[in-house]
Amino acid sequence: MLALSLETSTRTCSVALVKDREVLGEVVLNTQVTHSQKLLPAVDMLLKVTDVTLDQIDLIGVAVGPGSFTGLRIGIATAQGLAYGKKIPVVGISTLEALAYTTNITNGLVVPILNARRNGVYTAIFKGEKNKYQRLLEDSVLKLEELLEKLVTLPQPYVFTGDGVPVFKEKIEEVLKNQAIFVPEYNSIPQGKTVGILAIEKFKREGGNTPDNLKPEYIRLSEAERNLLKGCN
Amino acid sequence: MLALSLETSTRTCSVALVKDREVLGEVVLNTQVTHSQKLLPAVDMLLKVTDVTLDQIDLIGVAVGPGSFTGLRIGIATAQGLAYGKKIPVVGISTLEALAYTTNITNGLVVPILNARRNGVYTAIFKGEKNKYQRLLEDSVLKLEELLEKLVTLPQPYVFTGDGVPVFKEKIEEVLKNQAIFVPEYNSIPQGKTVGILAIEKFKREGGNTPDNLKPEYIRLSEAERNLLKGCN
Repeated sequence: MLALSLETSTRTCSVALVKDREVLGEVVLNTQVTHSQKLLPAVDMLLKVTDVTLDQIDLIGVAVGPGSFTGLRIGIATAQGLAYGKKIPVVGISTLEALAYTTNITNGLVVPILNARRNGVYTAIFKGEKNKYQRLLEDSVLKLEELLEKLVTLPQPYVFTGDGVPVFKEKIEEVLKNQAIFVPEYNSIPQGKTVGILAIEKFKREGGNTPDNLKPEYIRLSEAERNLLKGCN
Repeated sequence: MLALSLETSTRTCSVALVKDREVLGEVVLNTQVTHSQKLLPAVDMLLKVTDVTLDQIDLIGVAVGPGSFTGLRIGIATAQGLAYGKKIPVVGISTLEALAYTTNITNGLVVPILNARRNGVYTAIFKGEKNKYQRLLEDSVLKLEELLEKLVTLPQPYVFTGDGVPVFKEKIEEVLKNQAIFVPEYNSIPQGKTVGILAIEKFKREGGNTPDNLKPEYIRLSEAERNLLKGCN
């Protein structure tokens, strides 16, 4: 089974081609150029250089959040377009779960954190076991302090990854001291390949979506929606 | 400081653009197409999509082995050509050290193993600490049994990564039982980005090479060289 996978939940744009559990190719772009400008060129480039055509793809995998509202919209819209055009299923994967699978951590807890602004993080908690991550906390948006309060009740050490690390590292170390471990920035990047690996596994377990019933998991309302609701009160 | 880095030590071909400790982009190709056909197209693609020109590159990083003789020759020759043409320094990085830096492992020992044929592995042993890997064994070519004999005298657990894992996993588990942990195949891929990160660090520490004094680290003689020596006896 051959999956094309898209990951646009943060500033990083990553696309991958995954065959069963093997990565055939991956492109990761971490520049300031917007996702709308780089996502399809990255897909096109990856297909060309791997000598794969869209007709050979069985499945589209896509990170559905939480993360950047605009990034998610572009990734999901592109996934829907590709799946609709090629009449193939699409599978949505949690950004945070895919990030946990990039870490390889098997001792202690894996805590992906994405910067959600206003001192908040998009986060989840996973317990690393042999190449599996058991989920201990659903995808959530929490104040950093709330997350740290939860963590101190759980077994240490705590391994943090994601673009929230450079923002919150000092505050985390103040509380968790040397039980906090941080994945280095160059390995903290959401990657298309883990989205693809997880999408194939999920498809085999529970099937895929049609493009029209794939939705982003924003976790919290967008600023525009919050303003609209305020106006309604 | 902006580095272009090349990794062709195994079947995988990976190129990356790294600015200081930040990954601007990376392409990983794991197809059967030979390195000579995909390396320069991958570089060209990465530069185009990140909107970077060769003139902006300060440094070429390249994995110098151990690994596939042909792969290393192509990677190093390309690095030399680029560095010579642009009059910039080149820095060679151990394939095995770069592989250790992809793992994020901080508990126990990291043991990269690349399949060296004839029941042998290209290997080294690193002790994971906070985002650093202290070397306990130089890059070596060993029979698997020799490596396992060394490991049992050292503190566990042992985390294996590299293309030797699928080949030797069963034999390793027979000896080390549940103290052997294996990085999943999709995260066991040598990556251009860690070559780039390490090349910049090494350049800052000890400067770079000129293209003409960069050499592959084959660790053992190529088959052709062995045959030649036999003929001389």
